[in-house]
Amino acid sequence: MSDPLDSLDTDGAADPMAVTPELVRAVTDALDESGPDDALMLVAHLHAADLADMLEALRPDDRHDLIAALGSSLDPEVLADLDEHVRDRVLEDIDPSAIAAAAAELDTDDATYLIEDLGAVAQRQVLEAMPAADRALVEAALAYPDNSAGRLMQRDYVAVPSYWTVGQVIDWLRDSDDLPDEFYEIFVVDPRHRPIGTVPLYRAMRTRRPVAVEDIMQIELHLIAVEMDQEDVAYQFDQYDLASAAVVGSDGRLLGQITVDDVVDVMREEAEEDIHRLGGITAEGDFHLPPLQTVRRRWVWLLVNLITAVIASATIAVFADTIEQIVALAILMPIVASMGGNAGTQTLTVAVRALATRELTAANAARILWKECIVGGTNGLIFAVLAAFVASLWFASPIIGLVIGLAMIINLLVAGAAGMLIPLGLSRAGVDPAISAGILLTTVTDVVGFFAFLGLAKLIIL
Amino acid sequence: MSDPLDSLDTDGAADPMAVTPELVRAVTDALDESGPDDALMLVAHLHAADLADMLEALRPDDRHDLIAALGSSLDPEVLADLDEHVRDRVLEDIDPSAIAAAAAELDTDDATYLIEDLGAVAQRQVLEAMPAADRALVEAALAYPDNSAGRLMQRDYVAVPSYWTVGQVIDWLRDSDDLPDEFYEIFVVDPRHRPIGTVPLYRAMRTRRPVAVEDIMQIELHLIAVEMDQEDVAYQFDQYDLASAAVVGSDGRLLGQITVDDVVDVMREEAEEDIHRLGGITAEGDFHLPPLQTVRRRWVWLLVNLITAVIASATIAVFADTIEQIVALAILMPIVASMGGNAGTQTLTVAVRALATRELTAANAARILWKECIVGGTNGLIFAVLAAFVASLWFASPIIGLVIGLAMIINLLVAGAAGMLIPLGLSRAGVDPAISAGILLTTVTDVVGFFAFLGLAKLIIL
Repeated sequence: MSDPLDSLDTDGAADPMAVTPELVRAVTDALDESGPDDALMLVAHLHAADLADMLEALRPDDRHDLIAALGSSLDPEVLADLDEHVRDRVLEDIDPSAIAAAAAELDTDDATYLIEDLGAVAQRQVLEAMPAADRALVEAALAYPDNSAGRLMQRDYVAVPSYWTVGQVIDWLRDSDDLPDEFYEIFVVDPRHRPIGTVPLYRAMRTRRPVAVEDIMQIELHLIAVEMDQEDVAYQFDQYDLASAAVVGSDGRLLGQITVDDVVDVMREEAEEDIHRLGGITAEGDFHLPPLQTVRRRWVWLLVNLITAVIASATIAVFADTIEQIVALAILMPIVASMGGNAGTQTLTVAVRALATRELTAANAARILWKECIVGGTNGLIFAVLAAFVASLWFASPIIGLVIGLAMIINLLVAGAAGMLIPLGLSRAGVDPAISAGILLTTVTDVVGFFAFLGLAKLIIL
Repeated sequence: MSDPLDSLDTDGAADPMAVTPELVRAVTDALDESGPDDALMLVAHLHAADLADMLEALRPDDRHDLIAALGSSLDPEVLADLDEHVRDRVLEDIDPSAIAAAAAELDTDDATYLIEDLGAVAQRQVLEAMPAADRALVEAALAYPDNSAGRLMQRDYVAVPSYWTVGQVIDWLRDSDDLPDEFYEIFVVDPRHRPIGTVPLYRAMRTRRPVAVEDIMQIELHLIAVEMDQEDVAYQFDQYDLASAAVVGSDGRLLGQITVDDVVDVMREEAEEDIHRLGGITAEGDFHLPPLQTVRRRWVWLLVNLITAVIASATIAVFADTIEQIVALAILMPIVASMGGNAGTQTLTVAVRALATRELTAANAARILWKECIVGGTNGLIFAVLAAFVASLWFASPIIGLVIGLAMIINLLVAGAAGMLIPLGLSRAGVDPAISAGILLTTVTDVVGFFAFLGLAKLIIL
C-alpha cells in the first residue's frame, strides 16, 4: 500500500490553503479504504480552522467517520469554526455531554454559536451538562437577539480603575488566572464599572511602572451598545480601525468585549449575504445544504419570477396582432429587454453596494439619481445607434431600425432611473434592497422594453 | 441666522454613523451660504475616517472649498482614508510639497496608497519633496506589485532576539523612539533576521521579567510572503484569526508587518469587487466617478450583452415561420428564458461565492455539480407544472402547456449545470468567474430556452 501522503507533493508550496483538493482526496481514500488511522495521520497537523474546512469538504458519511475517529481528541475550536449547516449535522452525531464539554472550553461567543440552533430539547440537555458559571454566560448570550453585539461579545476582558499605575496593572495581569485568552487593550472603568478610557497594550508596555493609567489612557472610546446590530458593529471596527471594543449595557456598564477576529467573520458573512441576495438566494447561502432543502430555499424566488415573467408576457400579448404582421418584432424584442435588464443591473449593483457601505444616503441620492439618468441616456444613445444599425441590416428595414433605436433609448433611461429608485425605495421602506431589487428591476425593464418597442412599432410601422 | 447645528438633533443617537445626511446638508449649506468657518466648526469634532466620508459625500466644488478651508490643519489620515477616485481628484488641488509632508507623516502603506496613482511627474515631485528615509520606504513599496503584501505592509515593527528576557524587551520598548504607532505582537528573529517565533503582547505582559522570550514565544507562525496577493493575505488573517503577521522576503528575512485593520479594508474591497463584477461593472465600482467616465466603464459590458442578445435572437429567427403561425409562442417564450436565467443565476451565485471562499474546489466539484442538476431538475418539474397550467388556461390550449412544461424542465436542468460549469471553467482557465459568468450563463439559458420551446412547438404542434 502506498503512503497516502505521496499524492500531496504535487501542489506548489505557494498555495495558501492547508486543505488542498489533494489532501481532501487523500483523506477520503484513507477513510474509504485504508482505515481511520491513516486519515487521522493526514489531519493531525491541521490547524483547527483547517480541520473545520476539511470536515466541510468531506461527504457527510466520510465526515461522520472522521469525527468518530477523532473522538475526544477533537478540538472544540473546530466545531466553532464550522459552517452552520455542517455544524448542525455534525452535532447530531455527538453526545450532549460531549457538546457541553466542548462548549465549556470555548469563549462565550463561540459556545453560543455552537448551540444556538440546536433543538430546544437538545439545547437544554447541553446547557444542563455545562458547568454552572459557563451555562449562565451562554444563557445570557442566547437572550440577546440574533446578530446583535450581545451574541458576538466575549464576557472575559481586562478592566482596571483609573488610579492604578502601570506597574499595578502588570503585576495584576501576572498574578491573575481569570483573563481572556486574547486581548489587545485594557479598559479603564469608573467605580460604577462604566468605561472611561482604554489603554492599548502597546502603549501600556512602553510606559514606566509608576505612571498612572489615567495619564496614558485614550479617552476617545468607540463603545458598542449590547443590542447593536452586528452590521453596525462591523462598520465601527472598519471605520475606526479597531482591534477590540468594549460592549456596554443600557446603563453604560461594561459587559464584555468584541475582538476583531469575530468582526472579520461578520464582514465576510454580511458581504456574502448581499452577494447571495443579489443572486436570488437566501442570505445564508445553501452550498452545504442537501438538494431538497436547497430546492425549498430557492423555489419561492423562482415563483416570484414566474409571476413577473407572466406580467412581462402580458405586455407582449397586448401587441399580438402587431407581431402576427411583423414577425421580426418577436425576434428583436428580447434584445431591448435584455439590454435594459443589464444596464439597470449595473446601476442597481452600485446602488445596493453604496447603500450597504453607507456611501449612498439621503444627502446625495438626488445627485446620484441625476448622474445615473445621464449615464443611462448616454448609453441609450450609443446602443440605439448600434441596435438600429444591426436591425436595419438584418431585416433590410430602416424603419425597424428606427423603432428599436428609440425603444433602446427609452428603456436604458428608465433602467438607469429604476436601478437607483428601486433600491432607494426598498431601503426607505425598511426592506433589504439586495433581496428583491433585481426581480423588480427586470420586471420594469422587461415591461418597458416590450411596451416601448412593440408600441412604437404599432404606431410608426402599421 | 440660525445655528447650523440645530438641524442635527433630529436623528436618534442610535445611528452608528457620525456623518449623517443632516450633517452633510448642514456643511453644504454652510459652505454655500454662511461661509467656511461655520463648516469648519461643524466638522471639527469628526474622526479622520468620518471626515473622509464627509469629503466623499460633498459635491466636488464644496469638497474643494472645504479642503481649502481646512488648509494645513487637514489630518493626513483623512487623505489615506479617501476612496481612490475622490483621493485623486482631491490631490489635484493640493501642492506637491503639502502632499509630501502628509505622506511623511503616514505609515508606509498609507503613504504609498496616497501617491500610487499620481501621474509620473507629480509622483516624482512628491517623492523628491519627502525626507530621504521615508522616500526610500515608499519607493520600495511602490516596487511591489499592486495588491501584493508588499503594498499592504508597514515597515515599522518590533523584533527581538530569542535570548532576550521579557524584562529586556520591556525596557527596550520604553526607551526606543522608533516604534510603529500600533503593534500587537513582538516578532522573535534569528541572527539572520528570520522570524522564528512571536510573542503576542498579552502574553508578554503576563510574563515575569526574567523569563526568556524563547520560552514563551509561539512557534506556529503564519508568515506572509512579500509578493503574496492581498486576497491570500486576507484569507490567512480570516482563517487563523490574526491581529497582525510578519511579512518576509524570498530569503525568509523579516521585512515588515501587516495589521488586521488593513486586511479589513482588503476584505471589504474584495467582496465589493465580486459584487460589482457579478453586476457587470468594473471591480473598483464607479460610484464616485463622473457620468462620462462611468459610461466609459460600463458600455463595453453592454456591448458584449448586445452581441449575446443578438445570438439569442438569431435562435428565435430560426423559428420565424413557427411564430408566424402561433403568435402565443412569441408571448410565452420570454417566460422560459427568464426562468432559466434566474435559476441559473442562483446556482452561479453560490458557485462564484464558494470559489471565492475556497469552499468549492476540485475535490467536491463533481459532487456539487450533481447536486445542482438534481436541484435544477426538481425546480424544472415544479415550474413545468405551474407554467403548463398557466399557459394552458391563458391560450386555452393544453398542447401549448405541454410544450412550455417540457421546455421548462430542459432549461432549468441546463441552467443548473451551466451555473456550475461556467464559473468552474472560467476559474480553471484563470479568469475571474465573477466577471463574465453571468453574461455567458444568460446567453446559454436564452438560447436553450428559445430553442427548446420553439423547437418543441414546431415538432409537437405543427
